[in-house]
Amino acid sequence: MTQKHVRAAIVGSTGYGGVELIRLLQAHPSVSIASVMSSSSAGAPIAEGYPHLTEICADTLEAIDPEEVRKKADVVFLATPHGVSAELAPKFLEAELKVVDLSGDFRLKSAETYRRWYKKEPPPQAYVDRAVYGICELFGQDVAGASFVSNPGCYATAAALGLYPAVQAGWIDPDTIIIDAKSGVSGAGRGLSLVHHFSEINENFKAYKVNAHQHTPEIEQTLARAADRPVTLTFTPHLVPMTRGILCTMYAKMTGEYTDEVFVELYRQFYEGRPFVRVRKPGTYPATKEVFGSNYCDIGFAADPRTGRVTILSAIDNLVKGAAGQAIQNLNLMMGWEETRGLTFAPVYP
Amino acid sequence: MTQKHVRAAIVGSTGYGGVELIRLLQAHPSVSIASVMSSSSAGAPIAEGYPHLTEICADTLEAIDPEEVRKKADVVFLATPHGVSAELAPKFLEAELKVVDLSGDFRLKSAETYRRWYKKEPPPQAYVDRAVYGICELFGQDVAGASFVSNPGCYATAAALGLYPAVQAGWIDPDTIIIDAKSGVSGAGRGLSLVHHFSEINENFKAYKVNAHQHTPEIEQTLARAADRPVTLTFTPHLVPMTRGILCTMYAKMTGEYTDEVFVELYRQFYEGRPFVRVRKPGTYPATKEVFGSNYCDIGFAADPRTGRVTILSAIDNLVKGAAGQAIQNLNLMMGWEETRGLTFAPVYP
Amino acid sequence: MTQKHVRAAIVGSTGYGGVELIRLLQAHPSVSIASVMSSSSAGAPIAEGYPHLTEICADTLEAIDPEEVRKKADVVFLATPHGVSAELAPKFLEAELKVVDLSGDFRLKSAETYRRWYKKEPPPQAYVDRAVYGICELFGQDVAGASFVSNPGCYATAAALGLYPAVQAGWIDPDTIIIDAKSGVSGAGRGLSLVHHFSEINENFKAYKVNAHQHTPEIEQTLARAADRPVTLTFTPHLVPMTRGILCTMYAKMTGEYTDEVFVELYRQFYEGRPFVRVRKPGTYPATKEVFGSNYCDIGFAADPRTGRVTILSAIDNLVKGAAGQAIQNLNLMMGWEETRGLTFAPVYP
Amino acid sequence: MTQKHVRAAIVGSTGYGGVELIRLLQAHPSVSIASVMSSSSAGAPIAEGYPHLTEICADTLEAIDPEEVRKKADVVFLATPHGVSAELAPKFLEAELKVVDLSGDFRLKSAETYRRWYKKEPPPQAYVDRAVYGICELFGQDVAGASFVSNPGCYATAAALGLYPAVQAGWIDPDTIIIDAKSGVSGAGRGLSLVHHFSEINENFKAYKVNAHQHTPEIEQTLARAADRPVTLTFTPHLVPMTRGILCTMYAKMTGEYTDEVFVELYRQFYEGRPFVRVRKPGTYPATKEVFGSNYCDIGFAADPRTGRVTILSAIDNLVKGAAGQAIQNLNLMMGWEETRGLTFAPVYP
Repeated sequence: MTQKHVRAAIVGSTGYGGVELIRLLQAHPSVSIASVMSSSSAGAPIAEGYPHLTEICADTLEAIDPEEVRKKADVVFLATPHGVSAELAPKFLEAELKVVDLSGDFRLKSAETYRRWYKKEPPPQAYVDRAVYGICELFGQDVAGASFVSNPGCYATAAALGLYPAVQAGWIDPDTIIIDAKSGVSGAGRGLSLVHHFSEINENFKAYKVNAHQHTPEIEQTLARAADRPVTLTFTPHLVPMTRGILCTMYAKMTGEYTDEVFVELYRQFYEGRPFVRVRKPGTYPATKEVFGSNYCDIGFAADPRTGRVTILSAIDNLVKGAAGQAIQNLNLMMGWEETRGLTFAPVYP
Repeated sequence: MTQKHVRAAIVGSTGYGGVELIRLLQAHPSVSIASVMSSSSAGAPIAEGYPHLTEICADTLEAIDPEEVRKKADVVFLATPHGVSAELAPKFLEAELKVVDLSGDFRLKSAETYRRWYKKEPPPQAYVDRAVYGICELFGQDVAGASFVSNPGCYATAAALGLYPAVQAGWIDPDTIIIDAKSGVSGAGRGLSLVHHFSEINENFKAYKVNAHQHTPEIEQTLARAADRPVTLTFTPHLVPMTRGILCTMYAKMTGEYTDEVFVELYRQFYEGRPFVRVRKPGTYPATKEVFGSNYCDIGFAADPRTGRVTILSAIDNLVKGAAGQAIQNLNLMMGWEETRGLTFAPVYP
Repeated sequence: MTQKHVRAAIVGSTGYGGVELIRLLQAHPSVSIASVMSSSSAGAPIAEGYPHLTEICADTLEAIDPEEVRKKADVVFLATPHGVSAELAPKFLEAELKVVDLSGDFRLKSAETYRRWYKKEPPPQAYVDRAVYGICELFGQDVAGASFVSNPGCYATAAALGLYPAVQAGWIDPDTIIIDAKSGVSGAGRGLSLVHHFSEINENFKAYKVNAHQHTPEIEQTLARAADRPVTLTFTPHLVPMTRGILCTMYAKMTGEYTDEVFVELYRQFYEGRPFVRVRKPGTYPATKEVFGSNYCDIGFAADPRTGRVTILSAIDNLVKGAAGQAIQNLNLMMGWEETRGLTFAPVYP
Repeated sequence: MTQKHVRAAIVGSTGYGGVELIRLLQAHPSVSIASVMSSSSAGAPIAEGYPHLTEICADTLEAIDPEEVRKKADVVFLATPHGVSAELAPKFLEAELKVVDLSGDFRLKSAETYRRWYKKEPPPQAYVDRAVYGICELFGQDVAGASFVSNPGCYATAAALGLYPAVQAGWIDPDTIIIDAKSGVSGAGRGLSLVHHFSEINENFKAYKVNAHQHTPEIEQTLARAADRPVTLTFTPHLVPMTRGILCTMYAKMTGEYTDEVFVELYRQFYEGRPFVRVRKPGTYPATKEVFGSNYCDIGFAADPRTGRVTILSAIDNLVKGAAGQAIQNLNLMMGWEETRGLTFAPVYP
């Protein structure tokens, strides 16, 4: 094990995605943390801004320098905001490093769609084309051996894992899909804003970016691969007064008289050999706390003969399966390791 | 003002609905609390189980005796569970008291529907027929002068206020309605259960009673009045780790090319003169904290030309507009008072 | 009642203290809101930043101009930060307006003490001397007829109400007083900071400003009046992951063998005729939720013969009895009204 | 690694302590879970009551039978309530199993003290005497090689780790110690009670068992070993509206003019080589979220020359260092392993 160590650098280490990568990688048996980088806090020990890492990660934040990184790392995780990854990823790739990008910059394959939803210019198309979109359970075969992976969005992961098998099987009508999504507040990151001020969001529940969230086209792009035709859907994100967790409640018209039992069977077959997706038994539904701190995605079903609709529910921890955990799962696949390596910890409950 | 005092008795005073009635009635200018009753705790001061009422409500809980109540009260609020109201309401009505029932026993006009969703025998049909279903802003004219009002369910209030005008106007297709509802935990009452144990539900988000909640047919019954034909819809309740508040996110296909602006206009006209419904300006959505502790229902819209669907959002405090507040609003209408009497307090924010 | 209306202006209306004044004053029977002022947001409707006030307070924020205020108001509430009140209060006083200042600027009578704890220059001593320190239940006789009241700090109110009678009676040794205080996050106001970012403080508990909080000398100054000699004590504030509420747990050596029962008796006599202090019966302790949204201060005792110490607990809502509610209570006393006017609402529970 | 596997049985697997043992042991490199037992739920899969363990722990709960356990396990963890451990521990010890008891039954060495605080008869004194009290960083040398360890209480762990070095050094006066402790609600376990009902404790803060908590004599017993004379102290537990975490704020008179810096130095020397105690640098204080989910105990200091008192703060996760984590740390010492084995995971933040 010792000689196979991969050395990882983390850019954007002062955000929640970056710090979650540190938590997970420090326990990974085959990866060491070679460098933690930050444009804003270079020179400070990471534990100064994150005292929970005291005596765990003694590293000092470094400035971002691809040539320097090349000397000490094999892979770079970009936990950087939209726009920043677009600039950094090509540089690290040119320095012949493997790159896993956690931002949205390389997820949308259509430049026009990117412009419309992100309200900015996309990265060069050649890099966009090169980036493998890494929902491991759906496109893991593309990830194996790749050098550049675009890590999916948190909502997009939960929604796609919940809908893909049913769309692919033709059991639901893609034109009727509605995704009502709820997220803990950590999904918004560490940047200050009145919306995420404790006294404003505690004991509060509300929607935001209705019909305007940038994960909408990302989910549509994924489901189009399942449906083999364009998909247009409705997506509403909400903020839950809690820190971690996403629950997606998803609705669609069924194309036949399917039951909870056959949905469970369909999904268990689809996700066979994929330990991070847990298809819950009929009559039970996922809860965010049951995946807290872990890389699991739990899925449940409620097919309703009265309305002809099925309700599909999926839950993840937005910072693990929705960000850092899936990024490491992607690294595992890129390296040819089993996808669970370093990720087999149980949810923290209660 | 003094000689017009109405004397109110509250049955089921040890539940959250009952204790919220005490909070609101003690500040009502035209109503005095004549008796607080409880089958389980008779003999104990109300402030023993609810110390926040110390020196506010000195009353001792009394056993339930309609003949005794007749002597000292004019109106009875039944904050009792399903099944209990079915037995008590006829007795209080025979004792010639006005009755506002907060349970679900008299809401559904069809005995068959009641049996199917409540899994028990309905009350005698004559009493069901006599009960006026009291969503004040929709059916206030029926309430005026009534002696027996069935107070609507919390989810049913938020959903119906949000959907009724659009259904009545024919702007949305009733066959496509999906209601994704989220509630604070107080909606489940004070009875102990593992689901509502703090460590289980804190930092957790999940659905429950998917496709099986008894407010589903109640909403369908109300919207059928708007559509003038039967309505079948999908309804999913969720638990939010907070105490008070309901947000309904509601989806439907639009029948034409309507915008947020015309929805706002339609609703403002519909609810003109109804101060407890606040139609929010285009581009803004309700939040539960903005109605916390108050009798308001806030409504917002997001019409999406991309999908042809509209998303309608409504928020209430489940214990006020969803229970005790609306019950008092109904009493105001029954007495011929302005509907805001005793209810003009602002939300508690933050 | 109508012609006796007092017109109030609120400066600093965009903070939590200011907006709580609006909530309470809009329901006050003898006070109307004449102007809401803000240096930062003048020109915007108050409901834009605080949508919960939609259709409740239609006022537009105005710039701060004492001469203008003089024309339309009788009293000014300064819900402004330390330093700002120091500048504004003299101007409003010169304009012959009554002033209630919610900041800490005029609370400490010693300039040296102010400098030491506030780390800035105090206001002119003449104004400091003129300001009546208004804990109504302790110094209400000073407030009656005053034109300038310095409203006490939130922690200082809870601590002083809990300790004053015991110190005055000589039942506890002032040299042994330790105050362990816990506050909801709204006490920190609406200004953004990482400490009060939801994901940082949710599910977190910690101390801050240990031995350095500016309410320490304020409590010492009050208790010195009870002890008739200087008092030096230990005070530790903590942040609780909730929005409202303060609980003070206070420790001191008893000077004799006192029991819970005699403490209750002592305090009930001391606070007789003061309805906002509720001395809880022996063996029961206050809880913040039992005063939420109300102007009450609940107090309980645990005298311990084993250690010779008494533990005194007091609870308030930091934004009501700890800020806006007590400010209105002070206004009531200044005007010669009963002190409960406009403040007799019950706590919101649960 | 494979042949050194120790097989562990867990009794009381349906409580929070038991389920946390499962979470931690499933990731321990040298221990396998041989049996999960429950008196109340025998026959049911553990994942039925704890769905977060789906596909992680497939075990079915078994009835408690020491003879059966003897065949398949080497060590037994008793995560059982007070009184139950008293009966079970002797039986498992007679069956020649190693035992780690997480209850309070064997912590207090004085039968009289046990009777006074637990209000019941203590276990046979011979077993009490045999039980090694296992705060690893203080009494680790006693634990090495022991066959029966009494795992300390959650509050007792946080308090003792924070006070022991200062008492032993004679820097604080043991007669002046006051411990103001705050705990998340999971410390109360999974049993239902109104106090821990979500709507009652959410957004609430209060004390309980003031001067009456059974961890009081446990802390006194530990500190008496440090002081080499009896210690009597004041201890107040509080409930924080969060799930996990304990913060102890501890006060005492200093015996000299000590500073934060020398306290840090004293404690760093005392805890040298003990990686789970993190002595925080001067001017910084622990926070419960910074140890969430981990086995760390963080300690900070605020020495105050003004009052002559020092405030010592310590934070732990009550279910890890306060229960299951320390139990495994004790097992590691009993087996002669390094004490960190299986416990080197970072806190989950945010």
